[in-house]
Amino acid sequence: MISESKIKNAVKDMFSGIEFEQEPAGLYDPMRYMVGGEGKRIRPLLCLTAYSLFKDTLGEEIIEPARALELFHASTLVHDDIMDGSPLRRGRDTVWVKWGKDTALLSGDALLIEACRRFSSVPARFRQKMLSLFTETAMKVCEGQQLDQDYEREEEVSMDEYLGMVGLKTSSFMGCAAKAGAIMADAAPVQCERLYKYGYNLGMAFQITDDYLDVFGDEKLLGKPLGRDIINCEKSWLTVRAMEKAADKPGLLRALAAPAESEEEKGAKIASVKNIYIELGVDADAVEAVRNYTVRAMEAVSSMRLGQVRLEVLRRFAEKLVGRVR
Amino acid sequence: MISESKIKNAVKDMFSGIEFEQEPAGLYDPMRYMVGGEGKRIRPLLCLTAYSLFKDTLGEEIIEPARALELFHASTLVHDDIMDGSPLRRGRDTVWVKWGKDTALLSGDALLIEACRRFSSVPARFRQKMLSLFTETAMKVCEGQQLDQDYEREEEVSMDEYLGMVGLKTSSFMGCAAKAGAIMADAAPVQCERLYKYGYNLGMAFQITDDYLDVFGDEKLLGKPLGRDIINCEKSWLTVRAMEKAADKPGLLRALAAPAESEEEKGAKIASVKNIYIELGVDADAVEAVRNYTVRAMEAVSSMRLGQVRLEVLRRFAEKLVGRVR
Repeated sequence: MISESKIKNAVKDMFSGIEFEQEPAGLYDPMRYMVGGEGKRIRPLLCLTAYSLFKDTLGEEIIEPARALELFHASTLVHDDIMDGSPLRRGRDTVWVKWGKDTALLSGDALLIEACRRFSSVPARFRQKMLSLFTETAMKVCEGQQLDQDYEREEEVSMDEYLGMVGLKTSSFMGCAAKAGAIMADAAPVQCERLYKYGYNLGMAFQITDDYLDVFGDEKLLGKPLGRDIINCEKSWLTVRAMEKAADKPGLLRALAAPAESEEEKGAKIASVKNIYIELGVDADAVEAVRNYTVRAMEAVSSMRLGQVRLEVLRRFAEKLVGRVR
Repeated sequence: MISESKIKNAVKDMFSGIEFEQEPAGLYDPMRYMVGGEGKRIRPLLCLTAYSLFKDTLGEEIIEPARALELFHASTLVHDDIMDGSPLRRGRDTVWVKWGKDTALLSGDALLIEACRRFSSVPARFRQKMLSLFTETAMKVCEGQQLDQDYEREEEVSMDEYLGMVGLKTSSFMGCAAKAGAIMADAAPVQCERLYKYGYNLGMAFQITDDYLDVFGDEKLLGKPLGRDIINCEKSWLTVRAMEKAADKPGLLRALAAPAESEEEKGAKIASVKNIYIELGVDADAVEAVRNYTVRAMEAVSSMRLGQVRLEVLRRFAEKLVGRVR
């Protein structure tokens, strides 16, 4: 087994020795900017954690696909930020704000290609499995992002639709990260699938946590302004749950459709929607949902006969990931 | 050997049996639209032609990477059209005009992922070679596109810079298509490299032809309005060559910088720049350059001991590709 502190350090340093090309700067500067930042690097962490359950040493063999996961994630962030018009990411200007939309589009493509390249550089016996996993997952992430955009234009989205969208956009990617670690550790197919489920359910818990923190979190800790989902009319777990519970649906719809041009309007809109959430108790429901998905994640791995020490590692990983919500 | 008519038919039908997912429509409709159109499918044609030099039958084994080439090409077109703001492609609305920029961005990503997936599905013994070739090429195409954008903002670009940019953006991709066919046919490494050179030089000839036709071509045959490079201030072979030759550089720069907002202004600007090109004789120079690169392409394969029949196939391919210019 590999210790959590070793994993943490490996992930922290995973891009330190990496040299991207220098020219054209317009292509490679945004790439460096994205992987050089203070991202949480959850997917590489999850990948290495899954790997660590079966292996005792960390080598380049597993670091390279872990990097690929983060590069693909960065690619989606760069493109999503263009689509959402988001100005800030991790407390810094987004790529399109800093370099313009054309450059952001192109460097997002380059990050995706770089991810594909690193995924395909794994030893031959893993290559086909890893590449199918990666390309299937990447396609699901695109599908989820498209649904997310489609849903922005719809007045009401059902909880099933919402969970399906998050499943594609966020959870399948987390499942992929965990499964990739297991594949690279030569784990049996059934073990790989259980770790996929663990990652998938953690992904659900993670996204609901994210939605919760967007309204009820700490702006300074998040590094971005609160209430973005409300301002951007994005369907979050909170909106969808509130629609399920609201006796006064028209009132909720009015609050969600209120104008938010000036800073004053934005503040008022966020406050009024937040109030409705609190009245309906959807904040407590979100905490409960996060707990449920975390339980499901642990159930997926409980029958793996990993032993208490390893199960504890997975429990701590889950706690760290979603513990922020409590 | 595989006959040219068999190759032509295989390429014509290469997407007929392909079912993409149906949902979300926002993601898959643009993909269907892009591969269902009347594209020239030059890269799959080149790939199969290279393959045909060594093999006698066409199977799914080679069709799948040939499809991947076209899917990657489509991905770059969808994203390039967003960046260039181009309204028309192959006589039809571009994806961003038809579905909006966000959807175009995302379906371009999906096309790139789909290309990667199909490249990685080749038999195991070819996988690493094919994937390195693909990811290296894709990165070069991004680099070339970034340089292309950078050069739009520069007043003067040298012929070396221009040729380097085209080498990355267009020629390396054509080289990749030819080499991919050779790899899949189990050709010796030196044969693969010679076919890469053939494709690369044809790519140069092809791009210069494209630049030439943008000003001196037939609007109806091209399916798009003439003079786009002039209107968009893109550096074409003609501009760069004209800058090399012009005694009155300030006059040329003024013509290139003239406003082109109204249809009238656009027409006048195209006419004045075209006149300068004709006076300087850069149209004839372009025809000459196309001829030179075609000769180089044929030189690359002349020492391959392919025999006259196969050399003739490669000569006809080159003629068809760039013959339009004469």
